[in-house]
Amino acid sequence: MNKLEVGILGATGMVGQRFVSLLENHPWFELAWLAASDRSAGKTYAEACSWRLREPMPESARRLAVHECQTGAQGGKIPQLLFASLDSKVAGEVEQEFARAGHVVVSNSSNHRMEPDVPLLIPEVNPDHLALVTAQRRERGWKGMIVTNPNCTTVGLAMSLAPIEQAFGLEKVLMTSMQAVSGAGYPGVPTLDILGNVIPHIAGEEEKVEQETQKLLGKLSDGRVRPGDFAVSAHCNRVLVEDGHMESVSVALKSKASVEDLIAAWRKFRALPQERRLPSAPAHPIVVREEKDRPQPKFDVNTERGMATVIGRVRPCPVLQFKYMALSHNTIRGAAGAALLNAELMKSEGYLD
Amino acid sequence: MNKLEVGILGATGMVGQRFVSLLENHPWFELAWLAASDRSAGKTYAEACSWRLREPMPESARRLAVHECQTGAQGGKIPQLLFASLDSKVAGEVEQEFARAGHVVVSNSSNHRMEPDVPLLIPEVNPDHLALVTAQRRERGWKGMIVTNPNCTTVGLAMSLAPIEQAFGLEKVLMTSMQAVSGAGYPGVPTLDILGNVIPHIAGEEEKVEQETQKLLGKLSDGRVRPGDFAVSAHCNRVLVEDGHMESVSVALKSKASVEDLIAAWRKFRALPQERRLPSAPAHPIVVREEKDRPQPKFDVNTERGMATVIGRVRPCPVLQFKYMALSHNTIRGAAGAALLNAELMKSEGYLD
Amino acid sequence: MNKLEVGILGATGMVGQRFVSLLENHPWFELAWLAASDRSAGKTYAEACSWRLREPMPESARRLAVHECQTGAQGGKIPQLLFASLDSKVAGEVEQEFARAGHVVVSNSSNHRMEPDVPLLIPEVNPDHLALVTAQRRERGWKGMIVTNPNCTTVGLAMSLAPIEQAFGLEKVLMTSMQAVSGAGYPGVPTLDILGNVIPHIAGEEEKVEQETQKLLGKLSDGRVRPGDFAVSAHCNRVLVEDGHMESVSVALKSKASVEDLIAAWRKFRALPQERRLPSAPAHPIVVREEKDRPQPKFDVNTERGMATVIGRVRPCPVLQFKYMALSHNTIRGAAGAALLNAELMKSEGYLD
Amino acid sequence: MNKLEVGILGATGMVGQRFVSLLENHPWFELAWLAASDRSAGKTYAEACSWRLREPMPESARRLAVHECQTGAQGGKIPQLLFASLDSKVAGEVEQEFARAGHVVVSNSSNHRMEPDVPLLIPEVNPDHLALVTAQRRERGWKGMIVTNPNCTTVGLAMSLAPIEQAFGLEKVLMTSMQAVSGAGYPGVPTLDILGNVIPHIAGEEEKVEQETQKLLGKLSDGRVRPGDFAVSAHCNRVLVEDGHMESVSVALKSKASVEDLIAAWRKFRALPQERRLPSAPAHPIVVREEKDRPQPKFDVNTERGMATVIGRVRPCPVLQFKYMALSHNTIRGAAGAALLNAELMKSEGYLD
Repeated sequence: MNKLEVGILGATGMVGQRFVSLLENHPWFELAWLAASDRSAGKTYAEACSWRLREPMPESARRLAVHECQTGAQGGKIPQLLFASLDSKVAGEVEQEFARAGHVVVSNSSNHRMEPDVPLLIPEVNPDHLALVTAQRRERGWKGMIVTNPNCTTVGLAMSLAPIEQAFGLEKVLMTSMQAVSGAGYPGVPTLDILGNVIPHIAGEEEKVEQETQKLLGKLSDGRVRPGDFAVSAHCNRVLVEDGHMESVSVALKSKASVEDLIAAWRKFRALPQERRLPSAPAHPIVVREEKDRPQPKFDVNTERGMATVIGRVRPCPVLQFKYMALSHNTIRGAAGAALLNAELMKSEGYLD
Repeated sequence: MNKLEVGILGATGMVGQRFVSLLENHPWFELAWLAASDRSAGKTYAEACSWRLREPMPESARRLAVHECQTGAQGGKIPQLLFASLDSKVAGEVEQEFARAGHVVVSNSSNHRMEPDVPLLIPEVNPDHLALVTAQRRERGWKGMIVTNPNCTTVGLAMSLAPIEQAFGLEKVLMTSMQAVSGAGYPGVPTLDILGNVIPHIAGEEEKVEQETQKLLGKLSDGRVRPGDFAVSAHCNRVLVEDGHMESVSVALKSKASVEDLIAAWRKFRALPQERRLPSAPAHPIVVREEKDRPQPKFDVNTERGMATVIGRVRPCPVLQFKYMALSHNTIRGAAGAALLNAELMKSEGYLD
Repeated sequence: MNKLEVGILGATGMVGQRFVSLLENHPWFELAWLAASDRSAGKTYAEACSWRLREPMPESARRLAVHECQTGAQGGKIPQLLFASLDSKVAGEVEQEFARAGHVVVSNSSNHRMEPDVPLLIPEVNPDHLALVTAQRRERGWKGMIVTNPNCTTVGLAMSLAPIEQAFGLEKVLMTSMQAVSGAGYPGVPTLDILGNVIPHIAGEEEKVEQETQKLLGKLSDGRVRPGDFAVSAHCNRVLVEDGHMESVSVALKSKASVEDLIAAWRKFRALPQERRLPSAPAHPIVVREEKDRPQPKFDVNTERGMATVIGRVRPCPVLQFKYMALSHNTIRGAAGAALLNAELMKSEGYLD
Repeated sequence: MNKLEVGILGATGMVGQRFVSLLENHPWFELAWLAASDRSAGKTYAEACSWRLREPMPESARRLAVHECQTGAQGGKIPQLLFASLDSKVAGEVEQEFARAGHVVVSNSSNHRMEPDVPLLIPEVNPDHLALVTAQRRERGWKGMIVTNPNCTTVGLAMSLAPIEQAFGLEKVLMTSMQAVSGAGYPGVPTLDILGNVIPHIAGEEEKVEQETQKLLGKLSDGRVRPGDFAVSAHCNRVLVEDGHMESVSVALKSKASVEDLIAAWRKFRALPQERRLPSAPAHPIVVREEKDRPQPKFDVNTERGMATVIGRVRPCPVLQFKYMALSHNTIRGAAGAALLNAELMKSEGYLD
């Protein structure tokens, strides 16, 4: 099979680096084009990028040129499929420019997520929402399109909720996060802010989690998503962890269920990415651990190559009904891996032909 | 005024060290006697104690002898008033032995907290519960008594709840903690467990927070405490912070209130320790901060010498009614300072005459 | 006594914040004027500054206006005495502009330190070097002057060397530093760079330590400083510590000495700042600890309000002659406190009349 | 090829866990027997061991029984070859008991390292020292033998010195270490000791580094090792890093050399383990990096599966002659991997037939 050439908008940031790393040896996609800020444009990727991942920069990426984030960027054809991890200050306009020019923009930025004609997608949760792009292209008169994945904190929560929403119906969700510093990008969180500390605020994060979760678990009806009719409340905190967002979750359900019922629902959960064996899909999208003190970022964040949501400590909640911990890798399942899986879904659905 | 001689059971641990530090230059109490495990007995305090506080060990404590934790310990009269911070494996029996022998044991250990005739006390919250000791002494036939303070995680929560329970009534409380490592004592949490990590489990902690909060906010009636009739749910996590437990709290109230009403209730909150100007009482038991990202352990843990509960980010909660952050110093207000204030209350009530 | 009004160039950075903090309630100086980058100019200090110290911002500083770093800055008379903690990209020119305009610039920046007519000063070590300003003013035709303090890593080393150089003569010095993140300013070191890591390089630092140490311990002769005739080698590393540079030092001396001789020389070391009781002078400029595992930043960095150099583990070195640890507070003794003590020396010498 | 059955003495500690992990799928050895303290004996490995490695416990090890550390331990034949990572309080006697009983004890403990008839071995550095076991067995009348590897801090230093000692001769070595917490085992370093701190003392470490380095680089002559005739001085510090000891090294050489000569000597260094392609041998025992700020534990500790020494920042030293950084994985190349490579060397030399 000929691989499909792909590009990255915002290739030098933390999520951009994850894209580069995950695309190395990808069976369907081949990294052919990189773009970043004007400061980086004109350099090779090795020159432009302050690589922060533990695994070395892929050799194949080192010598790629970094272009400007413009549809008219010089120096080689821009691929149809573009992964985007731009700063939200510029992402809105740049993504639109590329979509208008015919590119399929698979974005990790928040700018367009909540627009009614833009799919906000987790392939295991709401693959049918991808159909929103038909309206998007028609209404906006675009040849290309924009498809988004959720915020890094939303993903783990929504993944953990989907199976129990399907089985028992959701009424209330209260989540407190303890988020890793890589979620703030690079240079991101100054050491002086977080050493021996907890920061109880991340700008815009709680609103994103609350709104995105309802959109993700909403129903597609008449070409629009009707948000889930359950309440969501998020407390978001930053802690001194490199990768992996931890979430203490309490839920109330519509139907009667037991702790064992929840665990069973999570364990048997499989969806379209698993059925179609999409390359980045985890074999087990949800892994439930039985130790009394897991999941932990140190040991569990890379479960299923960082694509699984790891759940533990499932127990009754005296205020709502159940409580549990969920852990999700914020720059893999919560960002670059999320977008990559979205693109794989789109390819398997014929959107990239 | 002649100072009252006091002793410490468990003087070499983290909380014991805080007792020693807080008792230096105390206007009412004078540290005269120390006891610790058999391993330490017979040494001077300077020899026996691996001092972990940033301020130096008080000179006056360095040369004090460390005794065995026994009523018959040789080498000097054991004071009537004893602060106790023993490991819960031995605290139950040792505290009883001393109370039976006529000592007033002001304990930080969990062993006796939930017994119906033992006061579980926060002087700002339920000073009237101290009256339980009358039944305790009568029923147990003791000349001494045991009085306890809550778990280090309960204190900050209960302090934040008391003013709004009094003003509006409490219906539901959901709390997720991010707790400091000093709460586990010394040597306590191994670095290999917590570096770059979150541990989502602390043995027995959630149960303590749920039960103790209800006892603390319960009403004394017919010589017994009727627990508060609100639901409490706790998620407890350990994070890489030295001192200061952070708590993300959501509450539902019985009466209608606004964010401003809550803030007003907290700010005007004063109680018996403030009225009587007890030496360890904070002038402002609750401090509400208005910055969007406070409280933080790094900056706020020592507010009012570690005796205040610092609240911030008060806002509506889509699931319950309100949400906020609370921070409390776990080894001061949550342990040694709590017991010290209890003893000051007891003295001002005439229990130590 | 009327206090002398002083200003700060670069008031919002980490060192600038230390200046503001140390000047609160200073007996001789009164903070009256602040300047910072154009981004901050026009705001109040509370608005402009992301305050990172654990103690709160002094109330008196909150409402001070932040001006531009220009001699013609509007809005109030610029004081004669200016403390400067500007980024080295701009410090060179700005400091000269102010000195030319008649201001006494007491600078923490590296730009002018090694110029032959600029005093590089530690009041305990080489107060006589202050006389260089006479030539400086004459040759440059300035009404004002520039006086500098050493790099934060140099200070602790030079302080530890001065007494043994005076007593025994120095031949060789080899120092490996483990430096705190606050030395890099704010935002400074990204968490992703240093969490669980050591960075074995700090740009320009080793050269500064090697050259500045020789100038500091050099002799003033014919109006110039002849650098010390000993060899200095520095290895500089960044570690995950907030404040306090640790240094593993080995030395070879010219005369015979014992470990006890060195300790005695350090312990009896007193100099001009102690004799004149300058307000910021530590009573004991060097504190020698005898425990086998001290000094440590956590416990010892604030010795003598951060103005002492703490030495420990003095023992023979199989390669040179002696080895020891030295600890110095990098933003107090190594920066703002250093400059402040320089200004106090200048005042006591009549340079500010 | 039939695999040789092997056992581990001290299987539950940090180094024991590394043995278990490294022996999974080893081409020559098969883990068949485990022993640990009496507290663990009688349990399965999964029950007895608080597993602290990021990779999961090998399935094949989970169900192995943990025996007592005694030659007469019940429950299955004890293999001839035993890897030993016992606490030094008991290692001395236990290792002797097993060697006397005919076992080949390949030990990571310090107890016997400096005995004149015990090989202290790095296969790349001094494989000929293995011949000491002939005298050892004869003099002690043992059927078995004890072979040791160096301290975790010595290994990286000695590896970096061997090629330049061979090429240019060594005169002086001064090393300052910044050591990872895993070197202290588990539970090891309490968080309260090291968070935001540096500990400038590790009991016995400096003496070990100084003596072991001289033995390792010594010459075998008349059945005894004559220690290297160069001076070694070590400063040892603990920092907040999980794995990987960093070392700032200065050296003086006997013959003239340039920075380029040193780098060339390191890069071309190959020895017996590489020639014989021993299973655990790194292809490149020494990796020299050219970036100005490497090696760093975060990025480089796992170079060559943790078996390489990574060198960087090679530059002139104003006091000795050259200075550089060296990094070595302390629980792999510095402990379990070191012993494993020793055993592989012994097998390839016929000592295990």
